[in-house]
Amino acid sequence: MRTIITISREFGSGGREIGKKLAEQLGIDFYDKELLEIASKESGITQELFVKHDETYTNSFLYSLVMGSYPITPDGRINPELPLNQKIFLAQFDTIRSLAEKGPCVIVGRCADYVLRNRENVVNFFITANMAHKRRRILERYDIEKSKVEDFIRKTDKRRANYYNYYTDMKWGEARNYDLCINSSKTGIDGAVDILKAVVQTVEAAK
Amino acid sequence: MRTIITISREFGSGGREIGKKLAEQLGIDFYDKELLEIASKESGITQELFVKHDETYTNSFLYSLVMGSYPITPDGRINPELPLNQKIFLAQFDTIRSLAEKGPCVIVGRCADYVLRNRENVVNFFITANMAHKRRRILERYDIEKSKVEDFIRKTDKRRANYYNYYTDMKWGEARNYDLCINSSKTGIDGAVDILKAVVQTVEAAK
Repeated sequence: MRTIITISREFGSGGREIGKKLAEQLGIDFYDKELLEIASKESGITQELFVKHDETYTNSFLYSLVMGSYPITPDGRINPELPLNQKIFLAQFDTIRSLAEKGPCVIVGRCADYVLRNRENVVNFFITANMAHKRRRILERYDIEKSKVEDFIRKTDKRRANYYNYYTDMKWGEARNYDLCINSSKTGIDGAVDILKAVVQTVEAAK
Repeated sequence: MRTIITISREFGSGGREIGKKLAEQLGIDFYDKELLEIASKESGITQELFVKHDETYTNSFLYSLVMGSYPITPDGRINPELPLNQKIFLAQFDTIRSLAEKGPCVIVGRCADYVLRNRENVVNFFITANMAHKRRRILERYDIEKSKVEDFIRKTDKRRANYYNYYTDMKWGEARNYDLCINSSKTGIDGAVDILKAVVQTVEAAK
């Protein structure tokens, strides 16, 4: 079993929990926020900056000034002249690739499906849920007013979509970009984990 | 087992074959082009016109002239003043609803997921595939030049998307509209059938 699994997810869909349970059941590593800590250590950029810029694309005037710069220097380091959000994306990019080199794992978010698109043995999942379920889940986990939760969900997904659409040539949440998309409201969290596991096994057997 | 299954599909993804096999294995009825014949009988519009307008939305100047007309007359018939493509859509709409009333079945395409969106016990699937697989599949089934097949696939999907996006308030192929989207290139046709069957069983058990 050498499959690298990426999980993209709507905010509040339970994608993180599904990914974590899937990794546990398959006995492989799991990376969500954990990825930021590793990328920070590997790049020398502080973890606070990774958290601040996590899955966020901020258009910057500086970017237009450095468009001519190469992202990687001739000796293989990230060009220090790049705007910070670009550096952070590239540092995560490197970390995702090195994690995939190490062995099978589950990686949540951060354009991992795009970063690993030319690798063999990658299965890409996208998790959705009905708004009523996402509301309930976010209200249980965040200290937020009931009247503001839908707006919070929409804005978080908008941010994730902008980040993905900016750094890739694909569209976040379009079925054709993923090997399987599932609505966790219909199956429940554990039901979704079982389906995802079955898909990984089917894909491995089909080779 | 009372589940109504709708299947939307990219052209060449094997969606029809997957739906047919799923229906056989579940022992339920299957409707793809069969739906046009039934809708023709029920509406009195000839089957040729259903075939000609099948999953095709043609914007018509006439439409703007009749926008004020009600689609259904006070005695429950389709308004004869509506443009033909609207009448055909409404006749299919009625047929899809009456098939769903009759009992569990698989319905392919024709906005069935949208038509049945307020019903209980509906599971909506979307089938995709990689371009290389779609090319091969279409070349095996249609008498078409190799150099033109990708264009034919893109145009057919564009037509299906236009039809869906026009008659519904959703976007064709967006993951969040479906309960499960699957790339049949990764699992194979029979692998996809098994996964879909498992999803139907999981959804039924989760109730």
